[in-house]
Amino acid sequence: MSRYRVAVHIVPRRGLLDPQGKAVADALHSLGFNGVRDVRVGRHLVIDADAPEPQSAERVVRDMCAKLLANPVTEDFEIANVEQA
Amino acid sequence: MSRYRVAVHIVPRRGLLDPQGKAVADALHSLGFNGVRDVRVGRHLVIDADAPEPQSAERVVRDMCAKLLANPVTEDFEIANVEQA
Repeated sequence: MSRYRVAVHIVPRRGLLDPQGKAVADALHSLGFNGVRDVRVGRHLVIDADAPEPQSAERVVRDMCAKLLANPVTEDFEIANVEQA
Repeated sequence: MSRYRVAVHIVPRRGLLDPQGKAVADALHSLGFNGVRDVRVGRHLVIDADAPEPQSAERVVRDMCAKLLANPVTEDFEIANVEQA
């Protein structure tokens, strides 16, 4: 068993409303950041887990996302990175 | 002016308590994911912004993080990616 650090992005599905992103974009405009066109706010999770190999660490984290971490109706997730911790 | 898509990670500073990460880790254990050792929950922002070049898009987003997006006391941020949108 080794320890792996798996980074996951969970983001609101494209096409769905993202009220938090809209609020952030409005706040940035108020501060004078006029070049901002769109903001999407998602979650960045870093999971340290024991697994025999990186492929199985990634597989287990995908399973976690499907079962608990991501909302299958409104969110998409992607494994951003897997590295030995 | 071109449009750039800048991805940012904002994460609780290492060493500080992350109650949301702790709650997620406990929930994963309850579901039988016993290999989980630690979970940190941060935010993943994707900002579309107009800028003359990628370097200035990144610079502007760093400024946004310092001024609004990240809490300078409790959070660290890093620019994960800059690409033409």
